[in-house]
Amino acid sequence: MSLIKEKVKQAIAILQELNIDMWLTYVRKTSEIRDPSLFFLTENTWLTWQTCFILTKEGKKIVIVGRYDAPDIKKQQIYDEIVSYDLGIKDELLNILERNKPETIAVNYSEDNVAADGLTYGLYLKLRKILEGTPYKDRLISSEKILTALRGRKIPEEVDRIKKAVEISEVGHELLKNNIQLGMTETDLANILKANNEKFGVEYAYPPLINVGPETTIGHGSPSSIITVKHGYLVNVDYGVIYDGYASDIQRLTYVLGEKETSVPLEVKKAFDTCKNAITEAADKIRPGMKGYEIDNIAREYVVSSGYPEFMHALGHQVGINVHDGGCLIGPKWEKYGRSPELKIEKNNIFTLELHVYLEKYGYCSIEEMIKVTENGCVFLTNRQTEPWVVKL
Amino acid sequence: MSLIKEKVKQAIAILQELNIDMWLTYVRKTSEIRDPSLFFLTENTWLTWQTCFILTKEGKKIVIVGRYDAPDIKKQQIYDEIVSYDLGIKDELLNILERNKPETIAVNYSEDNVAADGLTYGLYLKLRKILEGTPYKDRLISSEKILTALRGRKIPEEVDRIKKAVEISEVGHELLKNNIQLGMTETDLANILKANNEKFGVEYAYPPLINVGPETTIGHGSPSSIITVKHGYLVNVDYGVIYDGYASDIQRLTYVLGEKETSVPLEVKKAFDTCKNAITEAADKIRPGMKGYEIDNIAREYVVSSGYPEFMHALGHQVGINVHDGGCLIGPKWEKYGRSPELKIEKNNIFTLELHVYLEKYGYCSIEEMIKVTENGCVFLTNRQTEPWVVKL
Repeated sequence: MSLIKEKVKQAIAILQELNIDMWLTYVRKTSEIRDPSLFFLTENTWLTWQTCFILTKEGKKIVIVGRYDAPDIKKQQIYDEIVSYDLGIKDELLNILERNKPETIAVNYSEDNVAADGLTYGLYLKLRKILEGTPYKDRLISSEKILTALRGRKIPEEVDRIKKAVEISEVGHELLKNNIQLGMTETDLANILKANNEKFGVEYAYPPLINVGPETTIGHGSPSSIITVKHGYLVNVDYGVIYDGYASDIQRLTYVLGEKETSVPLEVKKAFDTCKNAITEAADKIRPGMKGYEIDNIAREYVVSSGYPEFMHALGHQVGINVHDGGCLIGPKWEKYGRSPELKIEKNNIFTLELHVYLEKYGYCSIEEMIKVTENGCVFLTNRQTEPWVVKL
Repeated sequence: MSLIKEKVKQAIAILQELNIDMWLTYVRKTSEIRDPSLFFLTENTWLTWQTCFILTKEGKKIVIVGRYDAPDIKKQQIYDEIVSYDLGIKDELLNILERNKPETIAVNYSEDNVAADGLTYGLYLKLRKILEGTPYKDRLISSEKILTALRGRKIPEEVDRIKKAVEISEVGHELLKNNIQLGMTETDLANILKANNEKFGVEYAYPPLINVGPETTIGHGSPSSIITVKHGYLVNVDYGVIYDGYASDIQRLTYVLGEKETSVPLEVKKAFDTCKNAITEAADKIRPGMKGYEIDNIAREYVVSSGYPEFMHALGHQVGINVHDGGCLIGPKWEKYGRSPELKIEKNNIFTLELHVYLEKYGYCSIEEMIKVTENGCVFLTNRQTEPWVVKL
């Protein structure tokens, strides 16, 4: 069975579990703006006119689609009923609602989960107008819970694709480490990763972040073409790829020995071990049913009690079709994270665990691993970095 | 000046013209879902946390952005004021509103213009909550008019990029016509276009549509790997590319002579001439200030009065960063087109003009040209097709 057919089947099971009668994904001109849920509902079709993808608790799979877009949807053989139209979607949609009489209709909006927030406000207003004067107008609810489950609970095919993305990233990280030279810029280092992408025929999951030494700009900025590798510098690399639609997200840390050094300075070793141990602490404690912020807090307290400042980001996010996936976040209860740290961790969620300590003399000491939550804990999808990689140049 | 700097300047002039105090583009995790307006507001930055791009009638250019995303925005040197935050956007946004006291705040939602409908419903709800208890809550309006003008009125740099995209498409169309062979499938023909893309280092503006002979599937479907070129078949190709962010959209028609034929059958010639003349009629009449449906109607009536059935799509759409661009549509007043056919055509709008006649014996007879609206009429950006291309195989 194709991935999409399996995810559609999973979505229907989730509707039953949540007791939601209907899930309605309402889109138009997907080349302009694309509801991320479409990944699970159709192959990469460009939909020009308004289109409704409808799944019901009873297992009905229906699409209402403009005539010229219909043949491609039909060819994919995912839906049992494909209704095409010429002039407008209204009558067909009302007709399907009347036939199914849903008490609850989930649509894609969410304040907290961007993955469930694919319905634009203009389309929402249009939908309200279509439903004007019908009982369905007041039956719209958020599909947040559906999408949190659907994106978060990875099926085996999704796990396999992510594992492959992890493998390709790890090869790239090794390649970069083995080719570091004095005088290389951050951009030069990024080019090694680009070559790795080309070798495997994959794209970046996000623009890679390269942090060389203490002068680097921390953040999501592009690699610098000025800052160069020098003796006694940390080289932090954050690199993930998309393999067959699914992402990886991994950070590795390399230390370039000072001219007279033979091993990593104690200050670097202590910072690295703090990050590593904080990840271990969090991974040891993780269980399905715990809330995201509870795990975040374990690592956060570990770092602070080790005498370092708090890291100003979440410990871990889910990974899937997007490098930031799913609903539950292993993060602190800060305003910008909304309710996502209060959601429960579930079996088969795939998370990053990442944190840093900044060292004024050496640079950005940061690592990032990936885990899959199991029934009783978690397994690492990455080959963990247990000490800084050391290069002598 | 970079394209984005010029478009930002144009946007401020449009705010003055429309007497709108502030334009607020509110986004988050742009790798998940991306407001199309961002193309004109920032270089291709991945924004992870909530971000506000703010332009005011007085010419202020402000961004509120998460700390880790700030360096990249700063590097672009487009904005005068860049406010970065760690925990949440609320206080900074309220502070900027209090300092500027806008009476009207345009945000990106529109029922009719997908190009102005980049704000998701979840983010809209979040924005309303931020503004709760302030006078600004009731000052939100649609940015539809701003974006209709900003996307529709092409500046010279945009026209140049589109012309280049047109040129590359035209080379591809010629290449395909010169390489048609009997027995080639629609997919084989599409591969010729793919090679043309690779030669010029461009991407498709949309998946190309190839219609070979009478058995083809009309619509936005993928080219068939079964239907092949035969004697006496029409080959219709719809092919556009993206050059430096801007699209082209052109259809060309080729006739494969029957074994004993030396010229195009009269039935094909008459259908082609009807399409061509309908385009000429529409282009001759077009003037800034006219409404979209008025021009559509000229071509529509011409086709029907020539004895053919009405074509079930709009005569022309705008082209820009998306192959379907801008606000005004040269189309009929059908439900699915909303108010867009009633908007006014403006100087420097770039439109397609396209229509078809279906011939049961030969196939899909369709052509598509591109025009730029001028002060007194229009100029063609395409080298018009004046008769079907003929190949003898």
